[in-house]
Amino acid sequence: MRAPLIAVLPLRNAIADRNRKEALRQQRHATIEEMPQFSVATPQRGYTAVVERGAIARLPEFLPSKHGRVFVVTEQGVWNLHGARVTAALRTTPFDTLFFAGGEGNKRMAHVEQLAEQMAERGADRSSLVIAFGGGIVTDLGGFLAAIYMRGIPVIQIPTTLLAQVDAALGGKTGGNLTAGKNLIGSFHQPLAVLVDSDVLSTLPENEYRAGLYEVIKHGVIKSEPLFRAMESRRDAVLAQEPAIVEYMVAESVRIKAEVVSADERESGLRRILNFGHTFGHALEAETKYTRFLHGEAVSWGMRAATHLALSIGMMPAEDARAIVSVLDAYGPIPSVAGISAEALQARLLKDKKTVQSRIHFVLPVRIGEVEIRADIAESDVRTAIERALVECS
Amino acid sequence: MRAPLIAVLPLRNAIADRNRKEALRQQRHATIEEMPQFSVATPQRGYTAVVERGAIARLPEFLPSKHGRVFVVTEQGVWNLHGARVTAALRTTPFDTLFFAGGEGNKRMAHVEQLAEQMAERGADRSSLVIAFGGGIVTDLGGFLAAIYMRGIPVIQIPTTLLAQVDAALGGKTGGNLTAGKNLIGSFHQPLAVLVDSDVLSTLPENEYRAGLYEVIKHGVIKSEPLFRAMESRRDAVLAQEPAIVEYMVAESVRIKAEVVSADERESGLRRILNFGHTFGHALEAETKYTRFLHGEAVSWGMRAATHLALSIGMMPAEDARAIVSVLDAYGPIPSVAGISAEALQARLLKDKKTVQSRIHFVLPVRIGEVEIRADIAESDVRTAIERALVECS
Repeated sequence: MRAPLIAVLPLRNAIADRNRKEALRQQRHATIEEMPQFSVATPQRGYTAVVERGAIARLPEFLPSKHGRVFVVTEQGVWNLHGARVTAALRTTPFDTLFFAGGEGNKRMAHVEQLAEQMAERGADRSSLVIAFGGGIVTDLGGFLAAIYMRGIPVIQIPTTLLAQVDAALGGKTGGNLTAGKNLIGSFHQPLAVLVDSDVLSTLPENEYRAGLYEVIKHGVIKSEPLFRAMESRRDAVLAQEPAIVEYMVAESVRIKAEVVSADERESGLRRILNFGHTFGHALEAETKYTRFLHGEAVSWGMRAATHLALSIGMMPAEDARAIVSVLDAYGPIPSVAGISAEALQARLLKDKKTVQSRIHFVLPVRIGEVEIRADIAESDVRTAIERALVECS
Repeated sequence: MRAPLIAVLPLRNAIADRNRKEALRQQRHATIEEMPQFSVATPQRGYTAVVERGAIARLPEFLPSKHGRVFVVTEQGVWNLHGARVTAALRTTPFDTLFFAGGEGNKRMAHVEQLAEQMAERGADRSSLVIAFGGGIVTDLGGFLAAIYMRGIPVIQIPTTLLAQVDAALGGKTGGNLTAGKNLIGSFHQPLAVLVDSDVLSTLPENEYRAGLYEVIKHGVIKSEPLFRAMESRRDAVLAQEPAIVEYMVAESVRIKAEVVSADERESGLRRILNFGHTFGHALEAETKYTRFLHGEAVSWGMRAATHLALSIGMMPAEDARAIVSVLDAYGPIPSVAGISAEALQARLLKDKKTVQSRIHFVLPVRIGEVEIRADIAESDVRTAIERALVECS
């Protein structure tokens, strides 16, 4: 693994470093050594996540030397805006485009099956390759399609939303929803490569961009105080999508996720820290039938609840708890939680996918940049934390 | 791995050995050391395949020490006949029974999804366990359900048909059909254990029993001359389901499959030898829309075609080719192939799942007990072999 240069430097240096690289790049053709890229090493596969503007153009580097038909799985809106980048990158490689109707409601087995039928009709075989090009729903479903087509063919992930870039597309989690709950069906299927190109973020609706920022904040709280502090101090630049800060927060998020996934592919230990805010957040999403909140917004609320819980049981300094709540405020508000019952949310926690034999594992902050997993929390403390987070967001 | 005692002895000794063990068993309680069991060692998981009468009773030994809800996936007919064995074995372990309508036409994603919804409704979590109890369709689909439920939970395979015992339930191949073809969707998901109990074969319809015998003959041709010779010389005992010969042929088949799968979990090399007869057989099944032939019957025809092909290109002695055709005759006939066109079958070969970039890999005998994989066969030779096999079976 190449050292993730910009990610470990304080932000100011990161920007300086980036600027220096930009200058270099204008002088001569960029080479692979100059690019921020991160290695993911899992038992299933080792691969690279490239984080840079224009990364899509590097797609041919990551195609296997021998491969069969290429299938780009995408949705129409994404393809209209950015499909030309993929077409240009693939140049002489023929490919088929398979469209998938976006939206959480379409992340279902029936659609995976339809895509698989289309692939089979067009002659896909075991040497075929899927390129998943879109937001988290496309990367999840396209990855799952690749995972199960003829018992597994390779996939290259090209995420086009901030949420997918900093979270969904990396780490090999793929799948779809059941009526009974989100992501209850799926596979661990690590990609051949992940290409993170922040050029495509420019067209992202503002609420989707903000929903992705909450996952960036999550990465800061769980594993990078510098990232957290950057989100705190550079709010206006972040919201204005200034290139240097966007590249920094995406690269640092990818670095953290790559490190965590490499240590624990299947979420038996360390990887669970990525669920900070998610246990509470999933309860909120389920209770509102996935219609009121974007995933990131629900996670934002969930991080509040987790922070209040950690504070109330004396796990973290009040100052750090205030800092978390204050950053979430700074990137808020999320849609109102008015009318949602704390009791109902608490009952939902027991139905979470991560709840095993009725034991809920909470990811709770110890300080900014460090979390712990706790399964010994009193129900009354959980209830109080939920109530506080509800009051703050109503 | 415990030495697969009976499997490596000639048949007569195997029977003697078995009788000796039976006597021992009556004297005192059977211990695990006495049972024929085989180890499968794959990158994904190592596990045991137990082959013995009454193996179902040993189910509790293979349950993880900590596990959540147990779901037995089965079909009504199997459950009516043999469900009591599972119920008795599980004794104090509560379990849910999920019924799946059998038949190749039901091996579809929609049914996997329905089963998953039922599991979720009944509180299945990541610690839950699937027991697939039935023929090849149940073991394939139940295994796939376990492979993708919450991205993978364990499965124990209890095959109840001869075909599933000697082939389908071992080796981790799971999945379902598309409209475009059989088994085009699936996962490699190795089980926790495979329990092969020949007691349940007594109720198998005669044509299903015979269909399974063709896979046993296949194992003989590819890797065990003693097994092949036993099938040749003990036809009447085999068809009468005499216990000693049934146990020998099942154990020897499981031993061979365990060895092959351990060497090559994902069919990148050696495992392809298990497809002897299958490339041609799949073409026949597809051409007749999976309605005229049982899978084993189609494989029987496919082994003829492969044998004629190997003979015509001078790969194998005429004597061995005659022996193969003669054994297939002895366990035949299969339904007539009248009206099926050689040209159509040859075109189907190109659409086989194992055909990669239009290159067909044929598994062809060199002699009884040894096969080779060849991808350099002239189309005219293939055509002639298909025509000969069609003539023999019309």
